[in-house]
Amino acid sequence: VPQIGDLGEDALIERMTLRLPSTPRAILGPGDDAAIIGLEGDLVVSSDVLVEGRHFRCEWSTAGDVGFRAAMQNLADIDAMGALPIALQITLAAPPTTEVEWVLDFADGLREACEPLGVGVVGGDLSGANEITVSVTAIGDMMGMEPVRRGGAHHADVIAVSGPLGAAMAGYHQLDNLLDFNQEAIDLFLRPRPRIGAGIEASRAGASSMMDISDGLVTDLARMARASSLGMSIESRLVPIHRAASAVAAAVVGNADEWALTGGEDHHLVATFPPKASLPEGWVVIGTVTRDRQGVLVNGEVPSRWGWDHFARV
Amino acid sequence: VPQIGDLGEDALIERMTLRLPSTPRAILGPGDDAAIIGLEGDLVVSSDVLVEGRHFRCEWSTAGDVGFRAAMQNLADIDAMGALPIALQITLAAPPTTEVEWVLDFADGLREACEPLGVGVVGGDLSGANEITVSVTAIGDMMGMEPVRRGGAHHADVIAVSGPLGAAMAGYHQLDNLLDFNQEAIDLFLRPRPRIGAGIEASRAGASSMMDISDGLVTDLARMARASSLGMSIESRLVPIHRAASAVAAAVVGNADEWALTGGEDHHLVATFPPKASLPEGWVVIGTVTRDRQGVLVNGEVPSRWGWDHFARV
Repeated sequence: VPQIGDLGEDALIERMTLRLPSTPRAILGPGDDAAIIGLEGDLVVSSDVLVEGRHFRCEWSTAGDVGFRAAMQNLADIDAMGALPIALQITLAAPPTTEVEWVLDFADGLREACEPLGVGVVGGDLSGANEITVSVTAIGDMMGMEPVRRGGAHHADVIAVSGPLGAAMAGYHQLDNLLDFNQEAIDLFLRPRPRIGAGIEASRAGASSMMDISDGLVTDLARMARASSLGMSIESRLVPIHRAASAVAAAVVGNADEWALTGGEDHHLVATFPPKASLPEGWVVIGTVTRDRQGVLVNGEVPSRWGWDHFARV
Repeated sequence: VPQIGDLGEDALIERMTLRLPSTPRAILGPGDDAAIIGLEGDLVVSSDVLVEGRHFRCEWSTAGDVGFRAAMQNLADIDAMGALPIALQITLAAPPTTEVEWVLDFADGLREACEPLGVGVVGGDLSGANEITVSVTAIGDMMGMEPVRRGGAHHADVIAVSGPLGAAMAGYHQLDNLLDFNQEAIDLFLRPRPRIGAGIEASRAGASSMMDISDGLVTDLARMARASSLGMSIESRLVPIHRAASAVAAAVVGNADEWALTGGEDHHLVATFPPKASLPEGWVVIGTVTRDRQGVLVNGEVPSRWGWDHFARV
């Protein structure tokens, strides 16, 4: 089986590039010292790093899954500013013994996430390493709109989320416990499918603050509360729960409230809107911004469990 | 000694951000889902990944050295397009047992490279890992100028380099052989100091093709030859050799020609110019673009040794 250490860097880049999505916005794509992209408005840029054994496990995720998720979580960050995602830069460090097919499958996953959105992979870098580390930088275009920041919430704004939560955690729970009765949840953990574009719609509807839910609703709401110096009060019964999460929870842990409140990885958005705003389709109100600076309250109480810290020892 | 696994992600980002350089171009800097940057011309973007034990060794390089080099090699890629470097995105994956001081020193190294150039670090991501991996994405602004590509050379153009070569290899050779009689070469290996801005000057002088010498002059010239479908013929006696490289070579291997021809890491630029162009200060002619498609010729012969492949097993 051909390994990347045998193929060499230049040949691997050449084969990989054939599988990667392109964008008409690229004035110059992969193959030079840098890519060139034409933007209409201000540049929006966000980066994430994914490490084997921490952000993904090769027993659970195919290379395509890793590529798909790496792309999608960064596209969600661009969407969370109310901007249009345009392109990705990808760096991949992997053992020389990694199969060439793994890297090409990884490229396919990137393409499957990006192509329907018109997003291209315009450049990157490859290296040998002892473990697989993927770093993604997403490039977006503000298109003349104002960015929606984390800290723009006002007292009495409503808090809303852009999609049903908990499916990724329900998928993780099954994989972690060797269960497989709900494939939809597993798929959504391996390949999160936030509705990219929900952020631009929220921005047009007047969203005052917004962020991508990556570390769990409660943890990320606490960050918005801190950034706004206000409180975020939500009701758990209002939080929309994905049907796959409910199905899995009913069978194994009772209800999916905790997965929806503390599980990250769904990559839907949370935003605040003026009380009289008309919310775009798909957005669901879950609470209200308050004057108190106690951070997040769930059903009037300080929640006891939080989300993820990426330096937690695994 | 405080370790990053004890401090946690948010606290580490907060402490690190205080040490990072900023740029007035940032409409929104670190701390949100994405950074926002105002550009005057097209976006230029380039990424590199550096892996512990492959691109740097912690016995040789301080964290500050790693940060400095990671920044500088990416700024050189932007310069190599004839663009103005504006900002960096940084992802760092490191063992939870890494000392907090290492990460802050890393940030200091980034600042020392970026601040004199007005470049800011506008965002990034941190993660635990088993080895240290740094990924840098550099953002540049074409400022209304045309990019200088790798493949734009014409027959009879002159080939020139932007600075004296070989110092980084002379530094590497000393470290690898436990020698330390020329500190300047060691410093230039650990902290390469290409003249950022040489690329914009070359562009203004009419450079027809250009790239950053990162994998060695011969290897990188071969890439330019392939991109232009032309030959690159250079004379080794014309290649400027750094005084520190000559000093080290005189003591240990005779002369520094091979280091200058095949050693990467100096991060100076190589470019082609029309025969009648007036070269900017600091650029030195080393050869001529030819019609034959034999790739690179050194003193009329096909060179026997090449540069670096990052998937080589170490």
